[in-house]
Amino acid sequence: MSLGQEMMGWAKDLWPLCRSITGPGTRDTLRYLKDKIPELQIKSVASGTKCFDWTVPEEWFAHGAELWSPEGEKILDFKDSNLHLMGYSAAIDAAVPLAELQQHLHSLPEQPDAIPYVTSYYKRDWGLCLTHNQRMALKPGEYAVKIDTDILPGVMNWGEIVLRGKSEKEILISTNICHPSLANNELSGIVVVAALARELAKRDRRYTYRILFLPETIGAIYYISSNQYDAARPEDVEAGYHCICLGDDRPLGWGERGSDERQWNSALVDLPVVTITRGKIGDYPEYHTSLDNLDFIKPQNLEESYNYILKIIEGHEVNKTYRAIFPCEPQLGKRGLYPQLSTKETIKEVELMLDILRLCNGKRDLSLIANELGSDIFTCSSIAERLVVGGVLESVSV
Amino acid sequence: MSLGQEMMGWAKDLWPLCRSITGPGTRDTLRYLKDKIPELQIKSVASGTKCFDWTVPEEWFAHGAELWSPEGEKILDFKDSNLHLMGYSAAIDAAVPLAELQQHLHSLPEQPDAIPYVTSYYKRDWGLCLTHNQRMALKPGEYAVKIDTDILPGVMNWGEIVLRGKSEKEILISTNICHPSLANNELSGIVVVAALARELAKRDRRYTYRILFLPETIGAIYYISSNQYDAARPEDVEAGYHCICLGDDRPLGWGERGSDERQWNSALVDLPVVTITRGKIGDYPEYHTSLDNLDFIKPQNLEESYNYILKIIEGHEVNKTYRAIFPCEPQLGKRGLYPQLSTKETIKEVELMLDILRLCNGKRDLSLIANELGSDIFTCSSIAERLVVGGVLESVSV
Amino acid sequence: MSLGQEMMGWAKDLWPLCRSITGPGTRDTLRYLKDKIPELQIKSVASGTKCFDWTVPEEWFAHGAELWSPEGEKILDFKDSNLHLMGYSAAIDAAVPLAELQQHLHSLPEQPDAIPYVTSYYKRDWGLCLTHNQRMALKPGEYAVKIDTDILPGVMNWGEIVLRGKSEKEILISTNICHPSLANNELSGIVVVAALARELAKRDRRYTYRILFLPETIGAIYYISSNQYDAARPEDVEAGYHCICLGDDRPLGWGERGSDERQWNSALVDLPVVTITRGKIGDYPEYHTSLDNLDFIKPQNLEESYNYILKIIEGHEVNKTYRAIFPCEPQLGKRGLYPQLSTKETIKEVELMLDILRLCNGKRDLSLIANELGSDIFTCSSIAERLVVGGVLESVSV
Repeated sequence: MSLGQEMMGWAKDLWPLCRSITGPGTRDTLRYLKDKIPELQIKSVASGTKCFDWTVPEEWFAHGAELWSPEGEKILDFKDSNLHLMGYSAAIDAAVPLAELQQHLHSLPEQPDAIPYVTSYYKRDWGLCLTHNQRMALKPGEYAVKIDTDILPGVMNWGEIVLRGKSEKEILISTNICHPSLANNELSGIVVVAALARELAKRDRRYTYRILFLPETIGAIYYISSNQYDAARPEDVEAGYHCICLGDDRPLGWGERGSDERQWNSALVDLPVVTITRGKIGDYPEYHTSLDNLDFIKPQNLEESYNYILKIIEGHEVNKTYRAIFPCEPQLGKRGLYPQLSTKETIKEVELMLDILRLCNGKRDLSLIANELGSDIFTCSSIAERLVVGGVLESVSV
Repeated sequence: MSLGQEMMGWAKDLWPLCRSITGPGTRDTLRYLKDKIPELQIKSVASGTKCFDWTVPEEWFAHGAELWSPEGEKILDFKDSNLHLMGYSAAIDAAVPLAELQQHLHSLPEQPDAIPYVTSYYKRDWGLCLTHNQRMALKPGEYAVKIDTDILPGVMNWGEIVLRGKSEKEILISTNICHPSLANNELSGIVVVAALARELAKRDRRYTYRILFLPETIGAIYYISSNQYDAARPEDVEAGYHCICLGDDRPLGWGERGSDERQWNSALVDLPVVTITRGKIGDYPEYHTSLDNLDFIKPQNLEESYNYILKIIEGHEVNKTYRAIFPCEPQLGKRGLYPQLSTKETIKEVELMLDILRLCNGKRDLSLIANELGSDIFTCSSIAERLVVGGVLESVSV
Repeated sequence: MSLGQEMMGWAKDLWPLCRSITGPGTRDTLRYLKDKIPELQIKSVASGTKCFDWTVPEEWFAHGAELWSPEGEKILDFKDSNLHLMGYSAAIDAAVPLAELQQHLHSLPEQPDAIPYVTSYYKRDWGLCLTHNQRMALKPGEYAVKIDTDILPGVMNWGEIVLRGKSEKEILISTNICHPSLANNELSGIVVVAALARELAKRDRRYTYRILFLPETIGAIYYISSNQYDAARPEDVEAGYHCICLGDDRPLGWGERGSDERQWNSALVDLPVVTITRGKIGDYPEYHTSLDNLDFIKPQNLEESYNYILKIIEGHEVNKTYRAIFPCEPQLGKRGLYPQLSTKETIKEVELMLDILRLCNGKRDLSLIANELGSDIFTCSSIAERLVVGGVLESVSV
């Protein structure tokens, strides 16, 4: 089984759980991940805790939701799709006329076959989501609405994996765990980050990795307010990658603003974090609808995303700063680093080696040098490490 | 009556006065402006005062100038156009043969219908200006020249309006008042700056405005040598605009070097002043000739120039530096700054607001932020002020 | 006789000498140059001296080299071309079968008519070089090889000319003297640098010139290790030019890496030295072969190279930093620097002068100013010096 297929399997297992920024669906998701990666710690903070301008919300328990037509026919059921229930919907058990019901329904006229994903975290209300075609078919009359939810003091959970490296400098990897049955946004991010964590846990690490599974926005804000990352210490974070929407067919790249990089990059926090994503958030038609389902993501896309992010991480791992040991070029020949006969052909062979030696002044790092030489960091790293073994270059800490 | 027409009326009133770097024409111009803007102070410095490498010149009084042909016909009269008399011409009352007369005549062979504007401030001489066609018609013989001028110890005048703002930081606006009957260069600058001064005097001001009506070159040099602006304090001047040639049909923009920005920008003064102009100085055919008359400038052009400069000033007024109050994004929803339902559509609506919040770190000013966001400073200012009212942003002094 | 022809004559005189990084051929080359430029000092350092990662090699004496065929015919003779003998070849006097001989022969299959230039400075071996056509004609049998060389403790020589200027800041000019009969690489560099040294010796100099004739690589490394140039003081060197391959038909320019700029630019030395060259090192077919002979270089090319480098030097000489004496513009008219009548035409004439005055703030040097004004340093220098005489500008040391 390929890694892509394995990740796809995890996504399928996690699909039915009704995640939100709090509640059992999110907790069960973290428990599932802890089975795969024992290093994961499931953390919590009590409802009502203040964090900057925010307060950790009460916990949401979604037990069920049904809508019955005037004729007594069940039209919607939470069991069919947890998207039918608005996130953080209040409970209700009442007969409501169509006009009043319409105030609580959400659909997408331009995507009449899709159920939208809607939440109302911070204003108490009840709501149901359905396809626009379903909605257009509703006839006047009294509808029975049964929404069985609780909103109670409890906790907000998140997952945290800290993999210590030789350095205390950290690389931050975050993803979100607050969306219900939506595949690309967000199961793809969860499974790719989980697979990366499992791999990094096995490796020798130069950097310390802090891998976070967070409820979007409030999770990052609470984490920043209470934890390692405050405005005073951006220098502790070498780089960070918020990883979401990694399973669809669109090209990989740096995303525009749209998720938790908003918190990591905020004016007084200012951490060097970018979002890595395929579909640009909010910009593809399946986004935040029932069309973002398990058919929308593919094993090979998940695996490509995994490899892409791992390559970036490996680039950080080898991006050291080196310093030449000798002023002037060393005598490469006597150290077995240079062909002993000097002919026309051999002169070019050592050019890249000499260029790296020339630029390693203990200040520029290898990514700058590779870029200046039109080379890549892995080639340059391999040469630099050969020069370290040869006794003519040393790695310095900066 | 539009503002453009009102400014045009002022230009017509000021047209006949024979301005120069000193003398009654310049003084009368300032008195006329003081009637419109009571805040204007008419200042003076005595002839002979040293300023850096220069000396304030003696005062020039131009009473009349006539040229009579050998046949006793009056060919030129100062009363017809004050351009006929070379600026700072010495007096003479004599009969001179044509050959000698030619040494003192100025005309433009390539613009045979235009009288040139010529001055000789610092070398004592007499001179008359005429069209090249007139000059070519002169026949040999003795010409009677009567130039009635005085060059006497007196004063050099300038106009100064200081409008105090909340800050001691200043915005400098300057124009020139030393050209005789020339409409674009320079009555257009005088009337536009006068109208701006009248408007700014009525407004609440963040910056202090220093508005100067100066004899070109020597006026700015004396002002710098004796006054607020010396090489040591460029930091007191937020920005400056030297405003000239604002009535013709050419496009508005930053001018090339050519007027008093030469003094404000000189190596050891180094104030952040640019010239705002339409016709590039010295580069349009009417420049410094009798073709630069009242028909060459238009009310709508004057008004457009006024609005252009006012917009720049308003940009300075709103270009504050803000700082986010909370690390991370604030909870915009509970503050009425964010739609309470989070759906696909609403996410984009607050993007600009969030981007401004993210960039307001107390260091970048709003013009930098607007530029980075591809927005404009007025839109960004309006949002920033809303965020200040909302309690999530504060203006800082830098 | 043109200078180009004179330099060509020197190249012809120096052609037969068998130069290497040490030995009598190199010493005789320096003696020849000392006849032309008495300021040249012939310096030496003992074999075995340590310099950074290197050791000054023993001295190589090449007395002769011959190869005889199995039939007793002399096939190769050092007297015909000193390229036949591998640089630093050990001695041998033996009969060797063809198979063994082949291990010590060097030829170029792709240039079958050219003798390659091959050295083995740091690994002791014997070797002969020949055309590939000659090599292909060798038949099985025993060959007599007579290589008469000595490798003995001695010295490494280099030439040094220091021409003191008003400033202790130095301009470094270097070339190499270690190649045997090769015309472009390197006699062209030797004769051009010699002619430049002779010319600079006659002139008034602002900068001090340090002109070096060095064995490639080891010469520069020893010089840096023992001498004026160490990593701590790159600020003493205003600029440097390593001058090689200056006689062929290719365009002049800054060379890619390939010669002693590798040492001057190395990470911990970091001097502002570039290589000036025509043929890019290692990249033209005649490079390091017997085709790089006296027909390959031309008098007019040598002279053009000389003029090109001299112009760069003259640019440094005039590239002063000036400061305006007066805040604001000075009164150029009373100082004879400005036309006394101010008419349309004369305004433009002084623009460049005023621009130079405006930019001379005692910090920017003239090369920056010329570049900003789209002018050239020689025009700007001539104007600046006129302004110094006029008493409105002063040269400052920075």
